[in-house]
Amino acid sequence: MDKEELQSHLQARYKDIKKPELKAVIRIQDEILSALRDHLRSVGFIEILAPIIGPVTDPGIRGASQVSFDYYGTQFKIMSSMILYKQMAGNSFDKVFALSPNIRLEPEVTRETGRHLSEFRQLDLEIANASYFDAMTIGEQMVTKVVERVKINCADDLEALHRDLKIPKPPFKKVTHNDAIELLMKKGFQLNKGEEIPWSAETALSKSFGDFLWLIDYPKTARGFYDREDEDRPGILRDFDLFYPEGYGKAISGGEREYEYEKVAGRILSSGELPEAYKWYLQMLKEGTTPSAGFGIGVERLTRYICGKEYIWEAVPFPKVPGIVSP
Amino acid sequence: MDKEELQSHLQARYKDIKKPELKAVIRIQDEILSALRDHLRSVGFIEILAPIIGPVTDPGIRGASQVSFDYYGTQFKIMSSMILYKQMAGNSFDKVFALSPNIRLEPEVTRETGRHLSEFRQLDLEIANASYFDAMTIGEQMVTKVVERVKINCADDLEALHRDLKIPKPPFKKVTHNDAIELLMKKGFQLNKGEEIPWSAETALSKSFGDFLWLIDYPKTARGFYDREDEDRPGILRDFDLFYPEGYGKAISGGEREYEYEKVAGRILSSGELPEAYKWYLQMLKEGTTPSAGFGIGVERLTRYICGKEYIWEAVPFPKVPGIVSP
Repeated sequence: MDKEELQSHLQARYKDIKKPELKAVIRIQDEILSALRDHLRSVGFIEILAPIIGPVTDPGIRGASQVSFDYYGTQFKIMSSMILYKQMAGNSFDKVFALSPNIRLEPEVTRETGRHLSEFRQLDLEIANASYFDAMTIGEQMVTKVVERVKINCADDLEALHRDLKIPKPPFKKVTHNDAIELLMKKGFQLNKGEEIPWSAETALSKSFGDFLWLIDYPKTARGFYDREDEDRPGILRDFDLFYPEGYGKAISGGEREYEYEKVAGRILSSGELPEAYKWYLQMLKEGTTPSAGFGIGVERLTRYICGKEYIWEAVPFPKVPGIVSP
Repeated sequence: MDKEELQSHLQARYKDIKKPELKAVIRIQDEILSALRDHLRSVGFIEILAPIIGPVTDPGIRGASQVSFDYYGTQFKIMSSMILYKQMAGNSFDKVFALSPNIRLEPEVTRETGRHLSEFRQLDLEIANASYFDAMTIGEQMVTKVVERVKINCADDLEALHRDLKIPKPPFKKVTHNDAIELLMKKGFQLNKGEEIPWSAETALSKSFGDFLWLIDYPKTARGFYDREDEDRPGILRDFDLFYPEGYGKAISGGEREYEYEKVAGRILSSGELPEAYKWYLQMLKEGTTPSAGFGIGVERLTRYICGKEYIWEAVPFPKVPGIVSP
């Protein structure tokens, strides 16, 4: 579908939403949301209300733009992720989660990936005093529980969507970023070890394994200032991404947090950001913050995978696709 | 607390959030969210993902401003309420709800009411082919269930907050807007029968009854174009507000929806709005929309009432108070 066709199609969402296929997806999404929360509450998490806007948000958003606006005379942004706020909450509760509304104005070229929206939600969580391995264990258990529950409670809807959904088998395989790059280069991709993996290569990676796959230990140059550097392996971060099977791409992004004031202040400066913008955050770190690890999982991408849809705009009631004006 | 004091206080939220009092409130809020969803699912509702931004949002926001920004060359807004989208979903599902993120830049004077935030969430729901009396029944049962569950599961936190919370007794008393105005005028308020009731009078009303109170049948001149006019009583809307006891003000706002194209188009025009802005919405009505009723309940105000807090910024982890710059 070209841009104009897609725009006409999405502007008439009130027609699509009456069709059995989208209704099945929305019912499955309801079950996913409920399964996520029930599982997290059952293992001791509490839900907090995510911020919608604020004076500062996540700068590490891979080529997308943030939305800025005037808030009583000060520049505010719509959250591109609540990562800095989760660390604040981690000072008070051992395990917190939130359904976080995010806006990222992705470049229009991302329409072709089938998995980018400019409006999306992350189920964001944070665990105090946890390692990145602890966080991965939580992540793979959570994803497995969700798939199990959807298969039980939405069997008819999955069948209507012709989706043969496999139950994941944790623990999932873990591959370092370095090894993944080497593997992809052998497959013919032109890659750089110090950078994030491009979308096309992510898809190839996601297709080449039979189950979910963790990528771990990203290089410091590829990520935001908040992922914690391994003290014994300078330049390597204690972080991870989770990839869906079948070429559905990235599911989860997370890691341990850099919590020491001096380190974070230095990394903000060397990333070219202004420390002034992160005033409350740096002040919080200066006064001492609980170490934590956590991650975010995109709810629409999870829905897309579970429903086996080609395009992410088929996996949400009111999709906002980069460059497309629609309700 | 004056503006500067409040701003300093809220900028150091990372300190407050470690205190037992705010932690108790956040735990209770977690229970409220869970109780709301569990109850709604148990009576047949499904949860949908609310829009965050869009080309058009709710114009009926009593003196607050919306946030506009450039979205790939078109003016978009952050949702001030998802009311128009709920009607779309009502075409597909009999009962839907969503936790809807809303931004309304309220005038700074609202800081004094203790119950206005510029960032808040509504638990929004819509019921196909329902009357406004059906919707009120759902609303009072839901509020009662939430209070019951918090009293059972958060007894220690309520005690720590010194909150003696009464279980509501549905059905709640219903008073027409007309009768409420007369009652308030007898109490000395200078009011106009064709307008919304001012905040100070709302508080007096909320204090003067021993339990929750429904105000129904607002005049057409006081509300947005989407509340349905009673066919037998021209000028009177089939809508309602719910007021908390003890002076905590408004809890719920809702009603039946005007769903006939000609009526809505006429009311948009006479409200001074541009029909062009509501293109998809009007097109949807033109092609035929399921009649529905529904409401929204502010989650932070519900938390404030249940926790018995004076200020709404005590009832949310990351409060945005009108005119105050804080995380």
